[in-house]
Amino acid sequence: MQARKASMVVKANGAEPGGGGKKLWGGRFTGATDPLMDKFNESLPFDRCMWKEDIKGSQAYARALAKAGVLTEEESSQIQQGLAEVGKEWEADNFEVKPGDEDIHTANERRLSEIVGSVGGKLHTGRSRNDQVATDTRLWLMQQVQSMREAVADLLRVAVDRAEREVDVLLPGYTHLQPAMTVRWGHWLMSHAAAWQRDDMRLRDLTPRVAMLPLGSGALAGNPFGVDRQALAKDLGFIGGVCPNSMDAVSDRDFVLETLFATATHLVHLSRWAEDLIIYSSGQFKFVQCSDAYATGSSLMPQKKNPDALELIRGKAGRLQGALAGMMAVMKSAPTTYNKDFQEAWQPMFDSVATTQDCTRIATGVLSTVKINPERMLSGLSADMLATDLAEYLVRKGIPFRETHHISGAAVKMAEDRGCQLSDLTPADLKTINNLFEDDVTEVWDFQRSAEMRDTEGGTSKRSVLQQAEKIKKYLADEGL
Amino acid sequence: MQARKASMVVKANGAEPGGGGKKLWGGRFTGATDPLMDKFNESLPFDRCMWKEDIKGSQAYARALAKAGVLTEEESSQIQQGLAEVGKEWEADNFEVKPGDEDIHTANERRLSEIVGSVGGKLHTGRSRNDQVATDTRLWLMQQVQSMREAVADLLRVAVDRAEREVDVLLPGYTHLQPAMTVRWGHWLMSHAAAWQRDDMRLRDLTPRVAMLPLGSGALAGNPFGVDRQALAKDLGFIGGVCPNSMDAVSDRDFVLETLFATATHLVHLSRWAEDLIIYSSGQFKFVQCSDAYATGSSLMPQKKNPDALELIRGKAGRLQGALAGMMAVMKSAPTTYNKDFQEAWQPMFDSVATTQDCTRIATGVLSTVKINPERMLSGLSADMLATDLAEYLVRKGIPFRETHHISGAAVKMAEDRGCQLSDLTPADLKTINNLFEDDVTEVWDFQRSAEMRDTEGGTSKRSVLQQAEKIKKYLADEGL
Amino acid sequence: MQARKASMVVKANGAEPGGGGKKLWGGRFTGATDPLMDKFNESLPFDRCMWKEDIKGSQAYARALAKAGVLTEEESSQIQQGLAEVGKEWEADNFEVKPGDEDIHTANERRLSEIVGSVGGKLHTGRSRNDQVATDTRLWLMQQVQSMREAVADLLRVAVDRAEREVDVLLPGYTHLQPAMTVRWGHWLMSHAAAWQRDDMRLRDLTPRVAMLPLGSGALAGNPFGVDRQALAKDLGFIGGVCPNSMDAVSDRDFVLETLFATATHLVHLSRWAEDLIIYSSGQFKFVQCSDAYATGSSLMPQKKNPDALELIRGKAGRLQGALAGMMAVMKSAPTTYNKDFQEAWQPMFDSVATTQDCTRIATGVLSTVKINPERMLSGLSADMLATDLAEYLVRKGIPFRETHHISGAAVKMAEDRGCQLSDLTPADLKTINNLFEDDVTEVWDFQRSAEMRDTEGGTSKRSVLQQAEKIKKYLADEGL
Amino acid sequence: MQARKASMVVKANGAEPGGGGKKLWGGRFTGATDPLMDKFNESLPFDRCMWKEDIKGSQAYARALAKAGVLTEEESSQIQQGLAEVGKEWEADNFEVKPGDEDIHTANERRLSEIVGSVGGKLHTGRSRNDQVATDTRLWLMQQVQSMREAVADLLRVAVDRAEREVDVLLPGYTHLQPAMTVRWGHWLMSHAAAWQRDDMRLRDLTPRVAMLPLGSGALAGNPFGVDRQALAKDLGFIGGVCPNSMDAVSDRDFVLETLFATATHLVHLSRWAEDLIIYSSGQFKFVQCSDAYATGSSLMPQKKNPDALELIRGKAGRLQGALAGMMAVMKSAPTTYNKDFQEAWQPMFDSVATTQDCTRIATGVLSTVKINPERMLSGLSADMLATDLAEYLVRKGIPFRETHHISGAAVKMAEDRGCQLSDLTPADLKTINNLFEDDVTEVWDFQRSAEMRDTEGGTSKRSVLQQAEKIKKYLADEGL
Repeated sequence: MQARKASMVVKANGAEPGGGGKKLWGGRFTGATDPLMDKFNESLPFDRCMWKEDIKGSQAYARALAKAGVLTEEESSQIQQGLAEVGKEWEADNFEVKPGDEDIHTANERRLSEIVGSVGGKLHTGRSRNDQVATDTRLWLMQQVQSMREAVADLLRVAVDRAEREVDVLLPGYTHLQPAMTVRWGHWLMSHAAAWQRDDMRLRDLTPRVAMLPLGSGALAGNPFGVDRQALAKDLGFIGGVCPNSMDAVSDRDFVLETLFATATHLVHLSRWAEDLIIYSSGQFKFVQCSDAYATGSSLMPQKKNPDALELIRGKAGRLQGALAGMMAVMKSAPTTYNKDFQEAWQPMFDSVATTQDCTRIATGVLSTVKINPERMLSGLSADMLATDLAEYLVRKGIPFRETHHISGAAVKMAEDRGCQLSDLTPADLKTINNLFEDDVTEVWDFQRSAEMRDTEGGTSKRSVLQQAEKIKKYLADEGL
Repeated sequence: MQARKASMVVKANGAEPGGGGKKLWGGRFTGATDPLMDKFNESLPFDRCMWKEDIKGSQAYARALAKAGVLTEEESSQIQQGLAEVGKEWEADNFEVKPGDEDIHTANERRLSEIVGSVGGKLHTGRSRNDQVATDTRLWLMQQVQSMREAVADLLRVAVDRAEREVDVLLPGYTHLQPAMTVRWGHWLMSHAAAWQRDDMRLRDLTPRVAMLPLGSGALAGNPFGVDRQALAKDLGFIGGVCPNSMDAVSDRDFVLETLFATATHLVHLSRWAEDLIIYSSGQFKFVQCSDAYATGSSLMPQKKNPDALELIRGKAGRLQGALAGMMAVMKSAPTTYNKDFQEAWQPMFDSVATTQDCTRIATGVLSTVKINPERMLSGLSADMLATDLAEYLVRKGIPFRETHHISGAAVKMAEDRGCQLSDLTPADLKTINNLFEDDVTEVWDFQRSAEMRDTEGGTSKRSVLQQAEKIKKYLADEGL
Repeated sequence: MQARKASMVVKANGAEPGGGGKKLWGGRFTGATDPLMDKFNESLPFDRCMWKEDIKGSQAYARALAKAGVLTEEESSQIQQGLAEVGKEWEADNFEVKPGDEDIHTANERRLSEIVGSVGGKLHTGRSRNDQVATDTRLWLMQQVQSMREAVADLLRVAVDRAEREVDVLLPGYTHLQPAMTVRWGHWLMSHAAAWQRDDMRLRDLTPRVAMLPLGSGALAGNPFGVDRQALAKDLGFIGGVCPNSMDAVSDRDFVLETLFATATHLVHLSRWAEDLIIYSSGQFKFVQCSDAYATGSSLMPQKKNPDALELIRGKAGRLQGALAGMMAVMKSAPTTYNKDFQEAWQPMFDSVATTQDCTRIATGVLSTVKINPERMLSGLSADMLATDLAEYLVRKGIPFRETHHISGAAVKMAEDRGCQLSDLTPADLKTINNLFEDDVTEVWDFQRSAEMRDTEGGTSKRSVLQQAEKIKKYLADEGL
Repeated sequence: MQARKASMVVKANGAEPGGGGKKLWGGRFTGATDPLMDKFNESLPFDRCMWKEDIKGSQAYARALAKAGVLTEEESSQIQQGLAEVGKEWEADNFEVKPGDEDIHTANERRLSEIVGSVGGKLHTGRSRNDQVATDTRLWLMQQVQSMREAVADLLRVAVDRAEREVDVLLPGYTHLQPAMTVRWGHWLMSHAAAWQRDDMRLRDLTPRVAMLPLGSGALAGNPFGVDRQALAKDLGFIGGVCPNSMDAVSDRDFVLETLFATATHLVHLSRWAEDLIIYSSGQFKFVQCSDAYATGSSLMPQKKNPDALELIRGKAGRLQGALAGMMAVMKSAPTTYNKDFQEAWQPMFDSVATTQDCTRIATGVLSTVKINPERMLSGLSADMLATDLAEYLVRKGIPFRETHHISGAAVKMAEDRGCQLSDLTPADLKTINNLFEDDVTEVWDFQRSAEMRDTEGGTSKRSVLQQAEKIKKYLADEGL
């Protein structure tokens, strides 16, 4: 068989393959450890923020092990008290990190055993860092999601409050950033509120998928000591129940992806709101002015006042999109169960959650303090923005809309040709275009009337805007926010 | 004032700024139209797939206009019948596209007016393409989401069916792609099913946010003809009710973003499943073999059989991540209400939905036909994968787990040093490491037993795997899938 | 050995694992082929656009095989002529696709053999679709990159032309979208041109990496027939030489990634330019007005004129970012050499290249026809934008800039308090703030002067702007564009 | 004019719009500052890493101001020495951060003025933080790019060294992760080296675009004090010259985008290499074994040894893709010149550069220490991988390749049917398939011969592999690496 012979040839030729002995290429890397690798591998610098959840999860596990007969009640108590002491050290900021504390789980268990002795070594029975880290992170995120919901609720309340108080203020409504129709400032506020409300709904809907308990899944195959996972879930407040499959439980990072998506989408909405305000506060608009608390000056130009807070929010929306895109790429094609790649989930998660909370709160601050200039807004309304109202005037006389659209367009052109405002055209002028125009057509030249005409649900009439505000208040009450 | 003088200087110096008259730089672009622009602008090539929804939405709107007194019942009937005829032309594939049909909405209304005459011009009363296109797309997507849910349900059923029938097959369970513990093949199937079930939950949860009615929002400010939007929502099956704010309604593309996220995440899960199978079917594993229906040969190498279907699914997961990332970038910072940028939402949406349905169905085909090789799987189980069981043996004798972990590690090393299997160590050998080992330690050397020990909820015991399968069947029944 | 016994238990229990015989779950998928899979697998619908490159590459390969003695000169001629005939069929649009033509390579070779008989079967000697498809795509992309460079050069020429002709027009220069300092309109034009020039540099720099020849790499291990790859590279115009390693050659898609990055970055630049023009054409600015050729009206509002072309460009920048993100995710973690996932490279590449060419050309059209309104621009200049000039006035009198910044700030405040323009303050007023102000301070109130002061290289003085334009012309000439 | 009347109505109805006086909604945010905003705005926590570049840039600017006559030589000296002292404080880690030090630029200038007094206030003359921050960052990045190139060069040297020393080791070459053909281990090494070499080329090509000087651009309009920017560029080592346009100079972040792309692409390549090694070290392959220095154990399973370093590299490739995607989204649609959003550029840049350097160095460590198992590799070679060689045997007898491919396929099938290896078929057996087979066909059954046959440039023959290694050494020498 030549195929086998080939094999032998290789061995004869091979000149000690495998890098035996001389290690000519190795140098600094051939030793037992590479110091860079330790740094590369450790997660304590960022996962220490979960110290409380790690302790809480371990205490519950100690209770569960006692219930399962693996620990005596006394052992369980010792461990729980020891963990409480570890927690106090963190709280007082005097937990001492030691070499080898590569992550918060290792650090806490190391310290526990120093405090309680060898019984500490019983805590990890049937548990793996794989189910432990997933449990801690979900516990942490459950809190944060609630906290983000409360921040969004605050923002909604400010929007509702201003919409109600300032419902009479009119604003040019834009499409394509071109003046389109008259809307209320409160309607603009409610349009952003509608988006933020959806953001809250998404945070609400993902909560049960965050709040599923991985603990009791071991490294991948399940727990062999009969731990009661349903009881554990209740003990720790996992309202979504237990993760149904142990291999999935240690490997599932959907709860991170979903949170990254929900936060990135919220920031997309904040970025659109910020873009509006940046433009509305620009030199040519001046509809609004940011409070000094959220603006800064220039190191070179003494007259400048820049809407930094809004620009940072807009920029951070991009950052969160990157966190989502990156995390999706991390998860794609990862082989079944746990892989170390997943450690890359935590930093984007911590950063996105913190950034979102900052952004929502800063946005609340900006929105509650931004000064509006109703006169500038009014001066942005021009009579040609009533061209649709003019067309609708004829619709009510029975002309098909497609024709009225052309007739109104002809009126716009007549005004342009004359160099006058559309509202400067007299009823007589308009009759030369279409003889259904009558003297009452002048009633069309009223921006308040234009807004009030749009009185269907969701429209910009005063009644409708106030109704929208009521609905949001009811939503928040129903959600207990 | 010099500042004003400067202005005059400019006018004097300005040499006819603004590109008046001579148009030296213009060339081909100075005319009234640029043919490339028409192509750039038009969406009919891709939005024609929504012809049915456009007609359905317009028919409902005609009914609503009649109810609001804008149309007579007869006009409304005429329009509805005319639209039905337009629909028949699309169905029979003989709708004739004409110049100017830049999108499906324009095309259908143009054709309607050819059929019913000038009354067709009344259909668009109070409506804008802004609320129309959002309505059509949501109608289309509502259908597709349901259809995707059904495809996922089919996939789940295949997984459940195989898990139940092949529950006795054992597989090496991996973490970090290193052999870790014994699991059941059915447990592996259920681990992927758990992920797919979450995918379905997400599709379920986003449905009410897709199914919110924008119609009756006009271009941005609302509808001035008293259209009953709640009735419209019911008529068209929008179970999420009406969009609460007209400016948001024409501008909200969250329903696209959410769908792109849900589909991209589903494909992340399929990619991980595909990665497993690609590795399991590689030359050194041979745990599974793809059916010929989903594999192809090589143009150069006669012996090859490549898992193309799985690789395409894995690759398309990347494509969908790109669709999501791109769409998020499109939406970020877009000024309030409609901007033409949003036209970029449709192609990724159409493509992602179609790709997802193809992938889910292909995955169902692959999973229902892949051949497994239980003997190869068994041969992948090695005695050192029972090291954890060995440690647990001692845990049950009261030794803290942390110590048993080291003891078991010492046994692994002893076997390595002797060049034998861990299971080749005799009770006497083991007693030299720790004297709590007894003769019954040999019971540990049994892979079935190892699997059966993990009998907590979600573990890999037979009972647990079958229970997991039952839960998924119940879920599908509860969801009506 | 218990471990073996476990294996036997499995076999006994296994109930014919592997889905033999009864195929209860299979249904439609158990046959030899799944029609959906054929559609899923085929690439002809999109790779047919490379028919010319496939033929060109095959003709060169036939010459190389002759040179290597694998084909006779006559065989090589027959094949080359046959391929030329296939090409004529594509050119005349009468190439008939047949079942089994899954990609352009298979289709062309199938047709070749129909035309020339069995000698056609010699063409693929030592070649694989793996090196063939990479060769064809690179050939295609080499052309497209050159074509994109020419489009960018046209855009640069329009910018240069306008900058030179309209160099006297002044514009408010913004930072943070707040009026900052006086700049020239031509300086604004040159700022975008600077970005587009970098885009061209990137396209230039990536060309040699696109133009590396994979042909002669076989499926992965190299060519066994002594084909002269250097000669092949010259024959086909691969200026970057040959791919250095056959395994890399069939697997490398860097040339796609780099092109996607270069095009996405170009569109980021176009999006920023578009954003400026969208804002500058908004109702409150009106600095510019898009030509009718690149704007559209509204289906509801007769007065509207929307900058659709600019918004589409801005939106498509997002789409291309998605293409890049998606492709990166496709490539990440792919095992060595060819995987079918890579088929996902082609559609984003085709789409991104076509979209980029459309966008660059549309941008050229917009830029060459946009009307500017120099008076509106001037009216956007306000005296407080000269506050920095005021500070610099004092710097020239020896006061440290940090102090002059505060003094100028005090003057801005004084004007604000009085409700007047900064330029309304008299020299006497200013002396109350700092006694180094003299009567010549009124010279500061001149926007043209302000622009002319910034005369360093790259500044906004007339000389500098014209110099910038010259440099770009020289660059284009040097690059032969 | 009704339109005006509307305005008055608003004022009458308006109920003190603008949030005057009572500020019911404000609460904590109405004060002059929001402490959260300070934290949100400041960049010193991350930009302090550029302290050296900030000082270097300022010292050069002080020299330039002296040359321009803005500073006396003595003033310039004072400032330069003062800055040197500030630098010493950073170096000794005793720079004291004070409230208001929002970024490294502000901090250093504040400290400078404390040291040198009011002359320090002259440093910022004609300069803005906008051109300063861009200058500092580019200076920082120029260093880092060079450092990354050196790290890549080290990695290439290890690959070259192993490829040369272990050139005789054979490996199954895979496509689609299916065994395809025999290749050399050194050929596999050179395939990854080819990708890394392109990574270096990209870093080289982007260097001149990083090394363009923004300083002397002011806030946006240019420098009014005649600073010699060409001299400044030389002084600071900006080999790419000066940024050509001041508005672009303060706004251009292409150098960040390009670096993010280059680093993300390098990590894509490292991820593919890592994926190979992870698979090759899996339980069923065992071709290689990671050094203990780059692997870790399990907290639960005593027998585990996980390739953590490789998995982290693979995961971090995703993280860098996210950094690129996020940064692109930040830049898209940003209005001309500086916006605060751009502050979001720095963290991804710092993180991506540091992560890349870590990954490249860890990869060098892994590659220089990974143990190979040539016997396992050989045992992965199977006779059917010689099917292409069998086909080529017949090609050399004049049969068209397409036919030989089928004949060889028939031989594969004959062996399968007999349950034997392809190489077990006798010449007589083969003659029954095609009568051109002769006794010398047994020479085909030799894996070394198979590798040696692929002797074209880039193929897997020994000569070719060694030539590839030589080319890389020459490249590194030519590049001075």
